[in-house]
Amino acid sequence: MITNSFYSQDVHGPYELHDIGNFDLEEGGRLRNCQLAVATHGKLNAAKDNAILVPTWYSGTNKIMEQVYVGPGRALDPEKYFIIIVNQIGGGLSTSPHNTPFPGGMANFPKVRIGDDVRAQHRLVTEKFGLSSLALVVGGSMGAQQTYEWAVRYPDMVKRAAPIAGTARNTPHDFLYTETLIEAIISDPAFKGGNYGASSDVHAGLLRHAKMWGVMGWSTEFYQQNRPAQLGFSSVDDFVINFLGGYFGVMDPNDLLCMAWKWQRGDVSRHTGGDLKAALARVKAKMFVMPISHDMFFPVADCEAEQKLVPGSELRLIHTIDGHLGLFGTDPEYAKQVDKHLTELLASAV
Amino acid sequence: MITNSFYSQDVHGPYELHDIGNFDLEEGGRLRNCQLAVATHGKLNAAKDNAILVPTWYSGTNKIMEQVYVGPGRALDPEKYFIIIVNQIGGGLSTSPHNTPFPGGMANFPKVRIGDDVRAQHRLVTEKFGLSSLALVVGGSMGAQQTYEWAVRYPDMVKRAAPIAGTARNTPHDFLYTETLIEAIISDPAFKGGNYGASSDVHAGLLRHAKMWGVMGWSTEFYQQNRPAQLGFSSVDDFVINFLGGYFGVMDPNDLLCMAWKWQRGDVSRHTGGDLKAALARVKAKMFVMPISHDMFFPVADCEAEQKLVPGSELRLIHTIDGHLGLFGTDPEYAKQVDKHLTELLASAV
Repeated sequence: MITNSFYSQDVHGPYELHDIGNFDLEEGGRLRNCQLAVATHGKLNAAKDNAILVPTWYSGTNKIMEQVYVGPGRALDPEKYFIIIVNQIGGGLSTSPHNTPFPGGMANFPKVRIGDDVRAQHRLVTEKFGLSSLALVVGGSMGAQQTYEWAVRYPDMVKRAAPIAGTARNTPHDFLYTETLIEAIISDPAFKGGNYGASSDVHAGLLRHAKMWGVMGWSTEFYQQNRPAQLGFSSVDDFVINFLGGYFGVMDPNDLLCMAWKWQRGDVSRHTGGDLKAALARVKAKMFVMPISHDMFFPVADCEAEQKLVPGSELRLIHTIDGHLGLFGTDPEYAKQVDKHLTELLASAV
Repeated sequence: MITNSFYSQDVHGPYELHDIGNFDLEEGGRLRNCQLAVATHGKLNAAKDNAILVPTWYSGTNKIMEQVYVGPGRALDPEKYFIIIVNQIGGGLSTSPHNTPFPGGMANFPKVRIGDDVRAQHRLVTEKFGLSSLALVVGGSMGAQQTYEWAVRYPDMVKRAAPIAGTARNTPHDFLYTETLIEAIISDPAFKGGNYGASSDVHAGLLRHAKMWGVMGWSTEFYQQNRPAQLGFSSVDDFVINFLGGYFGVMDPNDLLCMAWKWQRGDVSRHTGGDLKAALARVKAKMFVMPISHDMFFPVADCEAEQKLVPGSELRLIHTIDGHLGLFGTDPEYAKQVDKHLTELLASAV
């Protein structure tokens, strides 16, 4: 366990920590008194049918989901819905390598799967919030992986689902990209096999990792059209160092690696012996599959191929040259499109 | 200077070394008795109008160009043309960091630009071969950068030109990708600022560099459709380690870095004060611009935007899910398409 002030109420609050007890993981590990960091907006109605669950992506927390996706007049309107944003395990706010005591933390933190997050969230929303249905599950990237897992694992509970810029079964290409992210961190001698003294010791590795997000996270059009300048940066270099480097540089290496391992192995076909078609046929939710037009590692083609396997689903393409990290809401047109589709989805009878 | 048996006649021969004398570089360095490694096929005709110049790409040498692009019955037919394949400076066979004596070699090797290669090649073909025209200049990737440079710098000499999977002015996105390749190598502690004792000392960095080629060099469809298995590998991991790792792992780190720096800065608009349109307007060659459909870092959109600036040029898209490294000829349909377009180009009146 180490201290990292980035993971705090000051930066990401307010959120509540919910202790869901000892939690056994699919790969065999056990999280003792597993804590889920949860932020809620709005109120649960009497019928308990207005709950929306929002899982988080790699490096993301409840805070960016609130800032970019939630608000009065938005699709995720706290005046109409009870919105539950759950930080993923390993994300730094919920139980994670950096905040777990010796000997189970840091490099010894057990392997966590997307299915573990979804089971933990299920325990939370059924036992703590007394829910038996979710009006919508929506998330981007690793949040989309969790959204698919929810829809396949608990098909009767999920009424609507919107995986944005993510897949039900991670692709070999995406696995390899994530592998290079991992290696950027662990190749830093200061990483010391995960036993560094402070997250910031691994700054060199974290910055290499950030630069690789600079390549795959946006798109060639993003740079050609000088979006970094539009976002207030003086050059591509300034953008990569001071935006991406600043963003990832404050995070904890072991936490990122926990999420990366999980991301690589997202796969709903684990429920059906590897048969993706059979797994996705289990979905009962009304689903809008929402890839981003210029996404380089959850590309449209991969998302569309899965969408065709989900009964009654629709493909809703989001157009932005900001690529995968359009998820951050850097392009104002992005949020408008997301809101339009989610509003329509939420209005659909189920 | 170090010994690396990969850069040898045994592996890449036969080729001839041509000494073009002292050669002053655009960035201010001087290559003393600059050697160009050149392989020729076929015979120059009496009119001296059947010469084809083929520059090489990052990591490529004359050998792969011969194996994939040249042969009787092919567009580049040695029975009809005098084909001159010139290894780029820094590529390991021509004058390069690893084969230049102390103190000018290794980490102290001067910075080389695409324009330097083209001026060196111009000296070679005019002074050594007595040529005043080239029927065609054709190259892929960094070979395409040199092709564009030839067509802009020596417009009266280049009759036809075919840049494959490359650009006239490198994009910011591609620059950033190449930066991550560079950092994969120089972050290896064994790199020692370029003063290692043997190329293989830097194996860890070279392997990370190879994995990043695994992400950007092919495409998600390449992996989804299990092309590694079709190419004889047991898994993605086996493919990345034993194909890409084996391919790049024998090369010299300083040589790769010399080429990477050059690649990042390919830009014909240096001739026109940064005005790309004005630079490309200088082209007199009949040009086919030939991007690859699934290329992730010289993508079709970037190539097409430049093609529109070249007078009388045509866009000839090559379809293959093998992406940028389709250049290697892994997809048999690739060579057929290239041959078809080059045959038509060579038959065109100029």
